[in-house]
Amino acid sequence: MLRENAVNNKITILGFAGSLRKGSYNKSLLKASGGLVPDNSVLETFDLEGIPPFNMDFEQSMPERVKEFKRKIKDADAILIVTPEHNYSIPGILKNAIDWASRPYGDNAFEGKPAAIMSASPGTLGGARAQYHLRQIMVFLNMFPLNKPEIFVTFCSQKFDDKGNLTDEKTKEYIKGMLDALVSWTKKLKADTK
Amino acid sequence: MLRENAVNNKITILGFAGSLRKGSYNKSLLKASGGLVPDNSVLETFDLEGIPPFNMDFEQSMPERVKEFKRKIKDADAILIVTPEHNYSIPGILKNAIDWASRPYGDNAFEGKPAAIMSASPGTLGGARAQYHLRQIMVFLNMFPLNKPEIFVTFCSQKFDDKGNLTDEKTKEYIKGMLDALVSWTKKLKADTK
Amino acid sequence: MLRENAVNNKITILGFAGSLRKGSYNKSLLKASGGLVPDNSVLETFDLEGIPPFNMDFEQSMPERVKEFKRKIKDADAILIVTPEHNYSIPGILKNAIDWASRPYGDNAFEGKPAAIMSASPGTLGGARAQYHLRQIMVFLNMFPLNKPEIFVTFCSQKFDDKGNLTDEKTKEYIKGMLDALVSWTKKLKADTK
Amino acid sequence: MLRENAVNNKITILGFAGSLRKGSYNKSLLKASGGLVPDNSVLETFDLEGIPPFNMDFEQSMPERVKEFKRKIKDADAILIVTPEHNYSIPGILKNAIDWASRPYGDNAFEGKPAAIMSASPGTLGGARAQYHLRQIMVFLNMFPLNKPEIFVTFCSQKFDDKGNLTDEKTKEYIKGMLDALVSWTKKLKADTK
Repeated sequence: MLRENAVNNKITILGFAGSLRKGSYNKSLLKASGGLVPDNSVLETFDLEGIPPFNMDFEQSMPERVKEFKRKIKDADAILIVTPEHNYSIPGILKNAIDWASRPYGDNAFEGKPAAIMSASPGTLGGARAQYHLRQIMVFLNMFPLNKPEIFVTFCSQKFDDKGNLTDEKTKEYIKGMLDALVSWTKKLKADTK
Repeated sequence: MLRENAVNNKITILGFAGSLRKGSYNKSLLKASGGLVPDNSVLETFDLEGIPPFNMDFEQSMPERVKEFKRKIKDADAILIVTPEHNYSIPGILKNAIDWASRPYGDNAFEGKPAAIMSASPGTLGGARAQYHLRQIMVFLNMFPLNKPEIFVTFCSQKFDDKGNLTDEKTKEYIKGMLDALVSWTKKLKADTK
Repeated sequence: MLRENAVNNKITILGFAGSLRKGSYNKSLLKASGGLVPDNSVLETFDLEGIPPFNMDFEQSMPERVKEFKRKIKDADAILIVTPEHNYSIPGILKNAIDWASRPYGDNAFEGKPAAIMSASPGTLGGARAQYHLRQIMVFLNMFPLNKPEIFVTFCSQKFDDKGNLTDEKTKEYIKGMLDALVSWTKKLKADTK
Repeated sequence: MLRENAVNNKITILGFAGSLRKGSYNKSLLKASGGLVPDNSVLETFDLEGIPPFNMDFEQSMPERVKEFKRKIKDADAILIVTPEHNYSIPGILKNAIDWASRPYGDNAFEGKPAAIMSASPGTLGGARAQYHLRQIMVFLNMFPLNKPEIFVTFCSQKFDDKGNLTDEKTKEYIKGMLDALVSWTKKLKADTK
């Protein structure tokens, strides 16, 4: 599907959330984002379920699920990561998926990708500590995250209904603004300026 | 075994390495540490193999391997973490193990534990970026890592023989110094000063 | 005065705020803390006004104001830093004062000091990004900051009256809890456990 | 001079070093960079001497030296920061200069600027810890630092002669590569892709 969009000249964004929990607010935030992308773009999502613990001994014979993840990242024009904060950093399962997709040496799927980061948390900081760790990780991955806007969804339990639908209008506006900015940023980075 | 040591009044350290790879230098570093602990202490190690991806939906019915990990952490007087650096942070599999052991809410196995951190890497920075992320994580875990010494084993491929034995004398001295400091630090934090 | 308190067996805390602005909320927070210390302790404060830009060429002949700052730090049993967040880190003027007090090599005034950190900011994050930078700095300084509680005073303009008096009762309780914890932590670290 | 270069269609880089010390290796590194810029660009430098401690009370009536600094930043197409590491972060005097130039609210001189970071240190880590703090600061400043190459000049005392001239050929090559990358990156970000 991503390749087809490339033909249609649409900007394709691959989004994934750093949680395996069924009722995850961050998964719900990702789902909500799908309806908020600008016209000239499409958001495809990937679920990190099924990605086993990374072991460098097996990086030359990756599990199918990891191959699929890497292929989707490579096919995308831009990346959207929606991350909870666990223990003042990104969740292990998110970092594990990133570790797989960056390997083996010389085949980093994230190379050169524009990116945006969002996080939702029940508390007041909204995942900020996780986001700055993720930004440092992106330096090595050679990704280009947006500086602005930053989205920290605080007190997230109040912003979704009990089916996980985002109901807070202000948050929707922020997300729309971020996705617009991501598409413009992606076009700038893809432009041939030689 | 840890409980028995408690009876013998020995300081018990639980060590684990953030890699699943068989020939991991960080695993070798951990193994070497076992022979360098001071007389009044013992180092037990735990292998992170078999710890599945964390899913909050299952934190009330943890896998046996995770329960065992948590029990060993709780039984120990101090923690030694030996971590590679992947993508400018700690490996996903290490963070994942930490995420499990810190949950569910109110049952953080690391609560109040003194700790030391080491890292080995083939390059010049020796894992420094991973160590400072780990330190931030330890603030939430309410752990008390040593400030000094810090051990960054640079150019690690030159410091082990091909069976993974640490051969570099200077590195051995540093490790000995760190383990001595960890034992003293642990005694200070355990002392009743009310 | 600090020496006299030492004689009286009181725990002496030296506090300073990372702002030169007259109406600084962080200065006000520091001032409020003076009235909230436990019975067996005293908070002395120092104003960073008058500390010039650090120049290593002059570290052997420090300005009087810097000498005074270093002397007060050394005389104190514990340190309280109240910091605004500027540009996602601690203010330059705070870092500059720390740089002076840590020099010359071998005469770091902060060596071994227990510490606590607070911050106030008009926004939702309350200075968190500044605090984690400060914690990394404290690793090198060999300081021992409390892990808990952490105090981030958000929306600070609503928590003081127009004379800069802290009026928010909940914030007062948090500060009292932090100062109690700092005094206990200081006693633990000072205890002779050899 | 920067404006004139703009007319000539050259990319203008403003560089400054985070040290006031006469014999600073980081100043020497900056000086050496001047001779290594690509043909279509020019490096102007600014000395942070004379920038007083930031006080928000005076940000509406800035000292002349700060006004000059801000003007030069605004006139430049790209920014090069050469920073020592003090106490595991950037020097206070560098952060202080950044704080001035980012104020008052709405007049951040660094807004949107592409940037590159280098550091020199006598030890093995080459200033890495300072660089990642600076990168977090740049998120708020809305700057766009290069991800690659990163330049950490380790054991710097061996790489300059006693007049402060950079003599290490490999380091020169790295710097040349970074400045080439900075100029390409600047052109990409300046391109009109609407």
